[in-house]
Amino acid sequence: MDPRAELIGGSRRALEQAITLAESTRPDHRLAAEALLASVPAPANTLRIGLSGVPGVGKSTFIEAFGLALIAEGHRVAVLAVDPSSPVTGGAILGDKTRMPRLSTHDSAFVRPSAAGQTLGGVARRTADVIRLVEAAGFDIVLVETVGVGQSETAVHGLVDVFCLLLPPAGGDELQGIKKGIVELADLLVVTKADGDMVAAAGRAVADYRSALHLIAPSGLGWQPTVLAASALTGAAITDVWQTLQAFRAQALASGRFAERRAGQAEARLWQEITAHVLESVREAPGLGSALDHLSAAVRAGKLHPAAAAREIVQALRQGS
Amino acid sequence: MDPRAELIGGSRRALEQAITLAESTRPDHRLAAEALLASVPAPANTLRIGLSGVPGVGKSTFIEAFGLALIAEGHRVAVLAVDPSSPVTGGAILGDKTRMPRLSTHDSAFVRPSAAGQTLGGVARRTADVIRLVEAAGFDIVLVETVGVGQSETAVHGLVDVFCLLLPPAGGDELQGIKKGIVELADLLVVTKADGDMVAAAGRAVADYRSALHLIAPSGLGWQPTVLAASALTGAAITDVWQTLQAFRAQALASGRFAERRAGQAEARLWQEITAHVLESVREAPGLGSALDHLSAAVRAGKLHPAAAAREIVQALRQGS
Repeated sequence: MDPRAELIGGSRRALEQAITLAESTRPDHRLAAEALLASVPAPANTLRIGLSGVPGVGKSTFIEAFGLALIAEGHRVAVLAVDPSSPVTGGAILGDKTRMPRLSTHDSAFVRPSAAGQTLGGVARRTADVIRLVEAAGFDIVLVETVGVGQSETAVHGLVDVFCLLLPPAGGDELQGIKKGIVELADLLVVTKADGDMVAAAGRAVADYRSALHLIAPSGLGWQPTVLAASALTGAAITDVWQTLQAFRAQALASGRFAERRAGQAEARLWQEITAHVLESVREAPGLGSALDHLSAAVRAGKLHPAAAAREIVQALRQGS
Repeated sequence: MDPRAELIGGSRRALEQAITLAESTRPDHRLAAEALLASVPAPANTLRIGLSGVPGVGKSTFIEAFGLALIAEGHRVAVLAVDPSSPVTGGAILGDKTRMPRLSTHDSAFVRPSAAGQTLGGVARRTADVIRLVEAAGFDIVLVETVGVGQSETAVHGLVDVFCLLLPPAGGDELQGIKKGIVELADLLVVTKADGDMVAAAGRAVADYRSALHLIAPSGLGWQPTVLAASALTGAAITDVWQTLQAFRAQALASGRFAERRAGQAEARLWQEITAHVLESVREAPGLGSALDHLSAAVRAGKLHPAAAAREIVQALRQGS
C-alpha cells in the first residue's frame, strides 16, 4: 500500500512517518509532506482545541480525563504539543506515557510530544501540517497544548478553532497574576482541581474570574468567554466543558466565524511563508552580498539607522533583480 | 534654536516633540526623527535596563525608589513603558503621575507612558528610537518597563543592556508559576516587598529562586543570574540592585558582550525593517495583485498549501520585477 492509503486507513506507522516528514528541516521532506497533504482528504467536522495553563495547573490530568470522555462518546482524539522551550534547557512537556498513562496507550488516541530544539515559529508552522495529517488519519478532535509562555499561546491560538485556558483554583489577589493578553485569547476558562477541599475555593475562583472577565472581555463579538470549574479526579464538569465547546462550535459555524477563522489562519501562514522566502532571497541575492555586509556593519556600529539601511537594501534589490 | 540643539541642551519640550515624531505612523515624521537621530551624539556610558513583573508585584514602587536612588548618585533617569495591551481594552500602564509621584515630577527624571493602540512590534521598533532620543537629551539611565506578557518581555529584552525580573515574595508551590522562558531572559531577579512581615517569606523566596535557577540557567555563559530581595519601602537592597547591575555592566563591557548585544539588537532591527519593506512591496507589486488574490483565495479555502502559494508568489515577483 502507498503511504497515502495507509495514512487514510489509520496506520499509526504511516502517520508517524508522515509527521516526521512534515517536521523535518529538509526541503525535500517538507515538499513530500506537502504533496501528501494535497492528496489526502480534509475531513469536515473536526475540532481543533487549544489548551494552555501554567505548569502545576493539572493540564495532563485534565487532558487525560477529557480525552477519555471524548473517546467514550465515540470520538478519536489526537494530542499535540507546541513547546517553546529553548534548546538549551530542553522540553518542558515530556514523558507523555507517564503523564497520560491511559490516553497515550488507547487505540482511539494519538499522543505526540513536540519536536524539540526548533524555534517557536518553526514549531507552529509545522504543527499546522501535523494537525491536518492526524485529521486525515481519522482523529476528529485535536488537542493542541502548550505551556504558559505568552508567545506560545499566541502561536497556538493561530492553529486552533477554540482556545481553552486552564486556571488554578485560587482567587482574590492571585487573580492579578493572570496575563491579560492571554485571557483575551481564551474562549473558555476552566478552573481545575474543583474537588475535595478545593471545591469552595474553585467556586470562588470561578466567580472572581467571571467578574474579571466582565471588565476585560470585549462585548458584542458574539461569544462571551465562559468560566467553568472542573475536576479530572471526580469527572465533575468534564461533560460541561465539552458541551460548552460544542455550543461554541455550533455558534461559530452558524455565524460563519468558524470558517473565517480557519481561512484567516491559512492566510496568515501564507504571509509567514512569503516572508521566510523573501528574506532568504535577500540573504542570497547575487551582488547584494557586499552591500548587505557593508550596511549591516554600519548598523551594528550604530552609524546608520536600521530603517535607512533597510531602504538602501530594498532599493538595491529592486535595481539588481 | 534648532530642535537638535534644544534636544541636546536638555529641553523637555524639544524631547517631547522629537518623541512624538519618532512614535508617529506618518513616514515623513519618522524620516524627520531618523534625521534628528543621525545628527545627535550617541553618549557613551548609558545603561538601558529592562524591568518586568506581573501586576501587583510592586513595579511602580520599585521604579520610584530605584530611580530616586540613582538620581541621588548624580544620574539622570528616563522611564519608558512597552505596553502590549490590546487597543480594545486600553493600556495597563497608566497614570504615571499617580504611581510614581516623586520620580515623575523630578527635574532629573523623564517619565514617558507608552503610546497606546499600536502593535507590540511597532511599539518596540519605535521605543528603540525613543531610547536614543532620551540618551541624546542627557538621561544616562533608561528604565524600560513592561507588564508580564511573554511577547513584551522578549521585545524589551531586545531593546536593553540588562534585563531585571521583579518577583513576588512567595515560594514553594507558587514558584511553578514562573514562566521559564521569561526567567531565561533575566540577568537579575529581584524579590520585592522584603519588609515587615514579609522579610522571612522574601528570604525563603530568594533561596527557592536561587535553587530553581541552578536547574534552569545555562552555565558557562559568563554571567550567572543573580537573585536579590529588596524593599522599596525601607530601601533595603536598592543599593545592592544597583551594584549588581554595575557589576553586570563591567563584566559585559570587559568581555565585549555589551557592545555585541547592542550591535546584535541593531542588526535584528535591520531585518525587521527589511521584512516590513519587502512585504509592503509584495502587497503593492504592479501586476502581482490578481495572482496574489487568486492564490490567497485558494489558500484561504484550504485548496492550496500556504508554502506552495508562497513559492508561486515569490517566483512571480522575481519574473515580474
